[in-house]
Amino acid sequence: MKKDLYYMQRALDEAGAAYREGEIPVGAVVVCRDRIIARAHNLTETLNDVTAHAEMQAITMAAGELGGKYLQDCTLYVTVEPCVMCAGAIGWAQFRRIVYGCPDEKRGYHLYAPKALHPRADVTYGVMGEECKALMRRFFQERR
Amino acid sequence: MKKDLYYMQRALDEAGAAYREGEIPVGAVVVCRDRIIARAHNLTETLNDVTAHAEMQAITMAAGELGGKYLQDCTLYVTVEPCVMCAGAIGWAQFRRIVYGCPDEKRGYHLYAPKALHPRADVTYGVMGEECKALMRRFFQERR
Repeated sequence: MKKDLYYMQRALDEAGAAYREGEIPVGAVVVCRDRIIARAHNLTETLNDVTAHAEMQAITMAAGELGGKYLQDCTLYVTVEPCVMCAGAIGWAQFRRIVYGCPDEKRGYHLYAPKALHPRADVTYGVMGEECKALMRRFFQERR
Repeated sequence: MKKDLYYMQRALDEAGAAYREGEIPVGAVVVCRDRIIARAHNLTETLNDVTAHAEMQAITMAAGELGGKYLQDCTLYVTVEPCVMCAGAIGWAQFRRIVYGCPDEKRGYHLYAPKALHPRADVTYGVMGEECKALMRRFFQERR
């Protein structure tokens, strides 16, 4: 899907911003009716807050933008598979579509909470997966 | 434990504040070396944000207070069993002790993500469990 590539590229732009700020490079955008209504990147170091994952911030922003806390008509694009915390938030927000780039084999929600999302959520993964993974790998290699 | 009762009562005070504001009545406090360093209650309606659970806010506040995002020397007291999202955040924050009041049989983390917490976390439950549950039940009965 061309649109998925386009929006994932925008999420990857956010991940690049995180990388330049010394943050684990994860980015997210929320799309509602072909419009990006929120974009965010991981800020856990900058904000000194484990809850400041890209997805969490994007969900808060999107709800603010729409004036309603349920995001069932939105799609979340995120460069890396969400963790348990984020999957829980994605479930509460009732997202029906989630697109992620690469898996997180250590902390991904599939391992810890495979049923955290809305039961009717449609999940697509692997969109720009290599690029998303390469950025993560570069970040961690530089820190070894 | 007398101390657990004392701190859970403070969490229940927060839950009472949530109740008076028309929020699902859940409250939390974070205790570090016998001092309450954060207290919060559910604000999802007020803030129009699914991520504004009591625990999430308490974790953000506690990290701000301590100036470090890991809370391994702290205890989290919360009136109701944490959900998947909050359990994920509690895991990231590396809490080693969690005390909760009553179970959440529909959305509790035990159901969806039993391994979300830190592997060495010590979990106590049932402290003022009846009071915590009674407040939740009253809230939902009034809304039927």
